[in-house]
Amino acid sequence: MRSSQLFSKTSKTIPADETAANAQLLIKAGFIHKEMAGVYAYLPLGLRVIENIKNIIREEMNAIGGQEVQMSVLQPKDIWEKTDRWDDKKVDNWFKTKLVNGTELGVGLTHEEPIVDALSNYINSYKDLPIYVYQIQNKFRNELRAKSGLLRGREFIMKDMYSFARTQAEHEQLYDKAVQAYRKVYVRLGIGDITYRTYADGGIFTERFSDEWQTVSDIGEDTIFVDESKKVAINKDIYNDESIKKLGLDKSNLVEKKGVEAGNTFHLESKYTNALEAFYTDANGQKQPIIMGCYGIGVSRLMGLLAEHFADDKGLVWPENIAPFRVYLAQIGDSEQVANLSQELYEELNNKGVSVLWDDRDERPGVKFGDADLYGIPTRLVVSEKTLATGQIELKRRTESEVVMVAKENLIKSLAS
Amino acid sequence: MRSSQLFSKTSKTIPADETAANAQLLIKAGFIHKEMAGVYAYLPLGLRVIENIKNIIREEMNAIGGQEVQMSVLQPKDIWEKTDRWDDKKVDNWFKTKLVNGTELGVGLTHEEPIVDALSNYINSYKDLPIYVYQIQNKFRNELRAKSGLLRGREFIMKDMYSFARTQAEHEQLYDKAVQAYRKVYVRLGIGDITYRTYADGGIFTERFSDEWQTVSDIGEDTIFVDESKKVAINKDIYNDESIKKLGLDKSNLVEKKGVEAGNTFHLESKYTNALEAFYTDANGQKQPIIMGCYGIGVSRLMGLLAEHFADDKGLVWPENIAPFRVYLAQIGDSEQVANLSQELYEELNNKGVSVLWDDRDERPGVKFGDADLYGIPTRLVVSEKTLATGQIELKRRTESEVVMVAKENLIKSLAS
Repeated sequence: MRSSQLFSKTSKTIPADETAANAQLLIKAGFIHKEMAGVYAYLPLGLRVIENIKNIIREEMNAIGGQEVQMSVLQPKDIWEKTDRWDDKKVDNWFKTKLVNGTELGVGLTHEEPIVDALSNYINSYKDLPIYVYQIQNKFRNELRAKSGLLRGREFIMKDMYSFARTQAEHEQLYDKAVQAYRKVYVRLGIGDITYRTYADGGIFTERFSDEWQTVSDIGEDTIFVDESKKVAINKDIYNDESIKKLGLDKSNLVEKKGVEAGNTFHLESKYTNALEAFYTDANGQKQPIIMGCYGIGVSRLMGLLAEHFADDKGLVWPENIAPFRVYLAQIGDSEQVANLSQELYEELNNKGVSVLWDDRDERPGVKFGDADLYGIPTRLVVSEKTLATGQIELKRRTESEVVMVAKENLIKSLAS
Repeated sequence: MRSSQLFSKTSKTIPADETAANAQLLIKAGFIHKEMAGVYAYLPLGLRVIENIKNIIREEMNAIGGQEVQMSVLQPKDIWEKTDRWDDKKVDNWFKTKLVNGTELGVGLTHEEPIVDALSNYINSYKDLPIYVYQIQNKFRNELRAKSGLLRGREFIMKDMYSFARTQAEHEQLYDKAVQAYRKVYVRLGIGDITYRTYADGGIFTERFSDEWQTVSDIGEDTIFVDESKKVAINKDIYNDESIKKLGLDKSNLVEKKGVEAGNTFHLESKYTNALEAFYTDANGQKQPIIMGCYGIGVSRLMGLLAEHFADDKGLVWPENIAPFRVYLAQIGDSEQVANLSQELYEELNNKGVSVLWDDRDERPGVKFGDADLYGIPTRLVVSEKTLATGQIELKRRTESEVVMVAKENLIKSLAS
C-alpha cells in the first residue's frame, strides 16, 4: 500500500478521556478510532493487525480439528433462562434490546448456550463426538467502567472455542490438545517465552482449576506467582498452601510477577449441555451427558497487550508476524531514479509476499521516520539520492538503533526468506 | 475436509416457522442454523460460502482503492442526533440498548454517521481526498416481520462502502468506478448476465436516481422493467413517463420482470458530511463541502439469493466461485485400494488449491450422492471398486445428469486449471 492512499494519519492528540496507554498509542498511530469508552473502530492499519492475529489463531484451531462457525449477536431469551444466565441479577453485564413487539433479546456476551443449542440438532450418536467448534466474533459486555482501552472493552473481538467429549478422559485429551494449540498461538504472536499457563479458580461448575494464560509484563494488572523451572504460574486468587500443594508446586520456587490475561480455558463439565438437554447415545443405546470445555482468546485484547507491552518512547514495536506491514519503505526525494528504485523494491517485495507500506508522500524525512517508528513496522528501508550514490539501500530494524547498508539482491533475499 | 469430521448434517426437518425457501434449503443442507426469525448462525459449510462471497467483494473493492475498516456495532446517540436519525419516529427499525448508567446506545443498523465522524479526524486538506472506505460487518434492523430467510434479516452481513469526493465531477468518477466494481462482483458470483443496474428512487437527499442492482429471478419480490439491449432496468417505483424520458429509455423496449435486490448505490450529496461538520480546505484555503456516495451489498442476502435462485429439486446448486468446496469426493467402500486412491486424490487436489469435501463416512452410496446434491458442490467424484476396475474415476457435474469416466491425471489437470 502507498502511504499517499492511506486515509489514516499519525496524530499528536488523543481523546481527553482516553487514559489507557495501549489505546493512546494506537489512536496516535491511527490504528483505531475511539467510538466511546470501551468501544473502538479499527482503521486500515489496525484491521491488518487484527486480521494477522485472527489468522494465527484460526490456523492453530483448524490444526487441531476446530470447525469454524459464526453465531449470531442477537440472542433469544429462552436458551439463557435454561441455564439461569438471563436474569440481570445473575449476569450483570448483559446488553439487552427488544424487538418491535416488545420481546426481549440479548446482545451476545458469550456463546455457550447458542452453540450447545445449535449443536444439539446434530449430536445424536457417540459417532458424532468428539468435536471442537469455534468462532471469531464481536462480543458485548456492559462493563460499569471501561478504562483499559483494548484490554477490557464493552465491544471486543474474541475467539471462543468449545469442545464436546463423550467421557471425562476424552475431555482431558481435547483440553490438553487445546492447551498445546494455545502455546503455539502465543509463540507465533511473539510472546511465547513470557506467557504462562496459570492455574486459577475454576468457577462455579467444577472443583478443578481453570487455566488462564498470563503474559508477564510491567503493564499487567493481575498478580501471579511464576515457577520458572516448570513454566507454569498460579493466580493470586488461589495462592494458598492448599492449592500450591494440590498443584504439586513448591512455594519457595514461586516468584511474584505482574501479568496480563492473554486467554483462558475452562472445564465446563456438563453444566450447559445438561441444562439445554444435549445428550448423546452410547454404543449400548444409553443416553449420556456430554462433557464440555471452553477456550477463549481476546483478539482485540491481544492487540492492546502487544501494542502496550512492546512499545517504546517512539511508539509501537510489533512482532514480525503481527505488524500491519513487514516493511516501511521511505522514499526520500522524487527524482526519477529514486522513484523508480522505490517502485521496483515495492513490486519485487510484494511479489515475494513481503507486505510493504511505501511512503511516497511529499513529506520531510523526519516526518517519515517518525511515522515508521510510531507505526512500529519491523523493517524500515530508505531510498534517497544519498543511498543511490552508494549503490545500496539503507535498512533499519525497529528494534535496533543502527542503520545498515544492503545491496538490493541481498535485501530481497533476506526479507523474503 | 473429511465429512466424518464435519459436525453439521443434512436433515429432512426444518423449523415449523421457517417459510422462506432459501432458509429451508440452507437449513436442510446444514449450512445455517435458525436462531430466531430473521437471525441465523452460519455453520461450517455456510460460513465457507459467506467467506467466498466476502472475498470476491473485498478483492473488487480493494481493486478500486477501497480501504477496509471495521466500525463498531455499539453506537453513541449524539452523532445520530446530528443527522436526525436517532428518533424512533424518524428511523423505525433501530435496535437500542443501554449502558449500566442508563445512557442509550444504538446497535449499528448502518454506518454513515460513524464513518463520517471517524474520517473527519483525518480529512483536512484537498490532498486527503478522494477516498473510498468500506467494511464487511453484521448489521441489525428491527424488522416488524422477518419471513424471507436470508433475504431480509434482523441481523445480517453487509459490505458497505462510502466514497468521499471534493467536487460533484469527482464524485461522478468515484460512483462510476464503484458501479464497474459492482458489475465485476456479480459476474464473479455467477449472476452477471441476469443482474441489472436498475434506476430507483434516490431517496430524500437528492433529486437524482439511485441505483439498485436487481437480479432477474422467479423468486424476486420486486418488479422491474428491463431494457435488454441497454442492459439497464427501472424500478416499478419510478416507472412513469417522466422518469423513462429523463433516463433516455423507450417504454416499448421495457419488459416487466421479477427481481431480487442484490445491492444498491446511492448519491448522498453532502447531507451527512455537512451535518457532522466534515469539510475540507481547498487549495485557496477555503472550507468546502465533501460529496459522499454509499455502496451496499448484503453478503448474507446474496447467499440466500444464490441458494434459492440456483436450486433444483435435489437441493442447492452453487456457482463454482461460491461453493463451500469445489469437489465432493464420494468414497464408496473401504478396501485398501479405494481408501488409498481417495486419499491420494484428496491430497493432490488440495495441493493444487482445489478444495475437497471427502465423504469418508460409512454410509450407503445413495446417502452420499443425496448429500452431494443437497450441498450443491459443483463436481462430484466417485471412487469405488467398480471405478477402480475401469482404471478411471467417475465425475459428475452438479448441473448435468450424465456421469463421465476420467483418468486421474486428466481429472486433476482439468480441475486445477
